[in-house]
Amino acid sequence: MTAQMQSTRLEAFSDGVIAIIITIMVLELHVPRDESPHALVALLPVLFSYVLSFATVAIYWVNHHHLIHLVRRVTSRLLWANILFLFWLSLLPFATGYLGAHPALPMAAALYGAVATGCALGFFLIQHGVSTHLASAGVVADEDTGAVGFRIRNLVSLALLVASIPLAFMSTWLAIALFCVPPLMYFMPDDARVESLLAAEEDDA
Amino acid sequence: MTAQMQSTRLEAFSDGVIAIIITIMVLELHVPRDESPHALVALLPVLFSYVLSFATVAIYWVNHHHLIHLVRRVTSRLLWANILFLFWLSLLPFATGYLGAHPALPMAAALYGAVATGCALGFFLIQHGVSTHLASAGVVADEDTGAVGFRIRNLVSLALLVASIPLAFMSTWLAIALFCVPPLMYFMPDDARVESLLAAEEDDA
Amino acid sequence: MTAQMQSTRLEAFSDGVIAIIITIMVLELHVPRDESPHALVALLPVLFSYVLSFATVAIYWVNHHHLIHLVRRVTSRLLWANILFLFWLSLLPFATGYLGAHPALPMAAALYGAVATGCALGFFLIQHGVSTHLASAGVVADEDTGAVGFRIRNLVSLALLVASIPLAFMSTWLAIALFCVPPLMYFMPDDARVESLLAAEEDDA
Amino acid sequence: MTAQMQSTRLEAFSDGVIAIIITIMVLELHVPRDESPHALVALLPVLFSYVLSFATVAIYWVNHHHLIHLVRRVTSRLLWANILFLFWLSLLPFATGYLGAHPALPMAAALYGAVATGCALGFFLIQHGVSTHLASAGVVADEDTGAVGFRIRNLVSLALLVASIPLAFMSTWLAIALFCVPPLMYFMPDDARVESLLAAEEDDA
Repeated sequence: MTAQMQSTRLEAFSDGVIAIIITIMVLELHVPRDESPHALVALLPVLFSYVLSFATVAIYWVNHHHLIHLVRRVTSRLLWANILFLFWLSLLPFATGYLGAHPALPMAAALYGAVATGCALGFFLIQHGVSTHLASAGVVADEDTGAVGFRIRNLVSLALLVASIPLAFMSTWLAIALFCVPPLMYFMPDDARVESLLAAEEDDA
Repeated sequence: MTAQMQSTRLEAFSDGVIAIIITIMVLELHVPRDESPHALVALLPVLFSYVLSFATVAIYWVNHHHLIHLVRRVTSRLLWANILFLFWLSLLPFATGYLGAHPALPMAAALYGAVATGCALGFFLIQHGVSTHLASAGVVADEDTGAVGFRIRNLVSLALLVASIPLAFMSTWLAIALFCVPPLMYFMPDDARVESLLAAEEDDA
Repeated sequence: MTAQMQSTRLEAFSDGVIAIIITIMVLELHVPRDESPHALVALLPVLFSYVLSFATVAIYWVNHHHLIHLVRRVTSRLLWANILFLFWLSLLPFATGYLGAHPALPMAAALYGAVATGCALGFFLIQHGVSTHLASAGVVADEDTGAVGFRIRNLVSLALLVASIPLAFMSTWLAIALFCVPPLMYFMPDDARVESLLAAEEDDA
Repeated sequence: MTAQMQSTRLEAFSDGVIAIIITIMVLELHVPRDESPHALVALLPVLFSYVLSFATVAIYWVNHHHLIHLVRRVTSRLLWANILFLFWLSLLPFATGYLGAHPALPMAAALYGAVATGCALGFFLIQHGVSTHLASAGVVADEDTGAVGFRIRNLVSLALLVASIPLAFMSTWLAIALFCVPPLMYFMPDDARVESLLAAEEDDA
C-alpha cells in the first residue's frame, strides 16, 4: 500500500505538470490588438504548432498513465527518469512558441526536433525503468507481451525525431512532417498489452 | 478497482486542465500602468467576457464531474473525446481575450462562437460516450432516465452557438446574447437523473 | 462513499484553482530589465501586496480545507457558493497587481477592498452552507460549537473590508492597514471546533 | 483516517503549487521575435538558471514527498511551516528570471541566494516539525535513524546558501557555484532512513 501511494503521488505530480504545460502553451496565442483579419491569419502557424504540441503532450499523458499504472513501487531510477521527462516536456512550450513565431526558420524546426527528441528519450527511460521493474518483480517477461513492439515503435519515433534535427536545415517542411509521425504512431495506447497485464494482476489478487 | 482508478485519473487531469484554464483567463485583465479611472473603465468589456467564460467553464466542470462520475471504465473513445473537449476549452482564454479586446468586432464574436461550439461538440461526444457505455453495461436505458432531455438541451445550445457564428456578422450584440443562453440553460446540473442513477448503483452494491 | 468522493473532487478542484491563483500572483513581480538597484526597490510595493495576498489566500485555503472536511455531501448550493468564492478569489491577482503598481492611488486600494469583500462574502456563503448542512444532518447544533464565534469573526472582517472601500478615498494607508486585519484574525483555524466535531464523527463510526 | 486525509490534502496542495512553480519558470524563456541565432544564444544564461532552479524544485519535491509521507497527523505548526516554504519557493521563478537576465550582476546572484536560503529555512522548519511530531508519537528516536545526518546535510547547505549572499558581491561565479552544491548534496533522497521507518510502521499494522 505504501508503494501504491508513492505511485499515486508520482501520477498526481506528473498530471499537474503535464496539465500546466498543455495549458500554458496556449499563452503563445497572443491576443492581437489589431482588429484586421490579417492579425488572425498571422496566428495560423502559431495555432498549428499549438495543435501539434497539444496532441503530442496529450498522447504522452495517455501513455504515461498506462505505463505508471503498471508499477506498484516507484524506484529512485524511475523517479528521476520521470523528472527528466518532465524537464524536456517543460521546454516544449518554448519550442512550440519559437516554431509558431518562425515557421520557415530552419533553426526553429531543429530546436523543436531537439526538444521533442529529449521528451522521447525521457519517456524511453521511463518505459525502460518500468519494464526492468516488472521483469525483476517476475510479473511479466518481455517476450510474452507487446513490450518488444512497444520498444520498436519507440525507437522508430526516436530515430525520426533525431533525423529531423539535421533535416530541418535542408527543408523545414520535411522536419515538420516528421514531427507529425510519432503522434500518429502513438495515437492508440498499447491497450492490448496493458489490459492483458492488468488481467494477469487481477488473477493474482 | 482498476477501472475506478482510471476514471479517477481522468477526473484529476481534467480538473487540473480546467482549473488552469479558468484561472489563466484572468491574465487577460492586464494591470493598467495608467493611473486614470478611464484605464479601469476600458477593462470592463474584458471583465464581462471573463465573467461569461468563467461561468461557462465552471458549468462545464460541474456537468463533467456529474458525467464522469457515472463511468466505471474509461474507454479509449471516452478518453479522446475528453481530450478533444479539453483542446477546445483551452482555446477559450484566447477567444475570451480577443472578444474582451474587441467587443464590437464581428470577427471576435464569431471566433468566440466557433470556440464555444467546439467545446459544446466535445462535451456532446463525452456525453454520448458515457450514454453508450452505460447502455452497453446495462446499467440504464436511455428512455428511463433524463438522458433524452439532457440530449435535447445539448442540441439546443449547440444550435444556438452554431447560429451565433454567422449572426455575429449581422449583430455582435445578438451573438453575445446567444453566448449567455447555454450557461443559463445548463445552470443546474441534471441532479435528478444523476442521483437516481447513483441510487440504482448503490442498490446493486 | 459517493458523497465522500464528491466532496473530495470539490476539494481537489478548489485546491487546483487556489494553487494556481496563489502562484500566478507572483507573475506581477516582473523581472526588471534594468540592472540598477532602483529597479528592485521599485518592486517593493509589488512585493508587499504579493505577501498580503499570499497570506490571505493561504489562510482561505486552510479554513476552506477545515470547512469542506466537515461535509459528507456536496449540495448544489454549496457547489455554487464555492464557485462564487473562487471567482472573487481569481480576481485577487489583478487587484494585487493594481495595488502593487499604484500603492498610493485611492482607486487601487478601493478596488482591492472590493475584491477582498467579494472573497469574504463568498467564503461566508460556503460557511453558511456548511453550517445549514450540518444542522440539517443533525450532526451538530450551532450553539454547542464555536460556530457563533466563527460567524462573528466573519462578520467583523466583512465589515472591515466593506469599510475599507470608502475609507480608501480618505487614506490609502488606512485602507491597506484594514486589509491586514482579517488575515491576522483568521490566522489560526478554528481547531477546537473542528477537532471536537471530528472526534464526534469518529465516535459515531 | 481523518489525519491521513489531511496529510493527503497537504500533499495535493503542495504538489499543485510546486508543479505550477516548476512550470511557470519556463515562461522566463521568452520566445525571441528576432530570427538570428544570436537571439537564442542570448537565452543561454536564462536556460542555465532555469535548469538550476528546475533541479532545485524537483529535489525539494522528492524530499517533501518523503518527509510528509512519514506524517499521519498534520499539526498547525507543520501546516504553517509548509506555507512558509511554499511562499519562498514561489519567489524562485522571480529570482531565476532575474539571475537569467543579469547573470553577471552581483545583486542578482545575492537575491537568488537569499530566496534559496528562504526555501532551505522553510524546508528545515518542515523537517523539524516532522521530526518533533514523530518523536512525540514515539514512532522513532532521532538517534536510531538517519535524522541527525539529514539535519547536518541541511545545516551545511543552509550555511552555503547564506554564505553565497555576501560572496556574490565578491564573485558572482563563486555564488552560482555554491547554488549548485545543495542540489547535488540532496540528489538522493534519504531512502535508507525513510524505508526503515516505513518498514517499522508496517510491522506495527
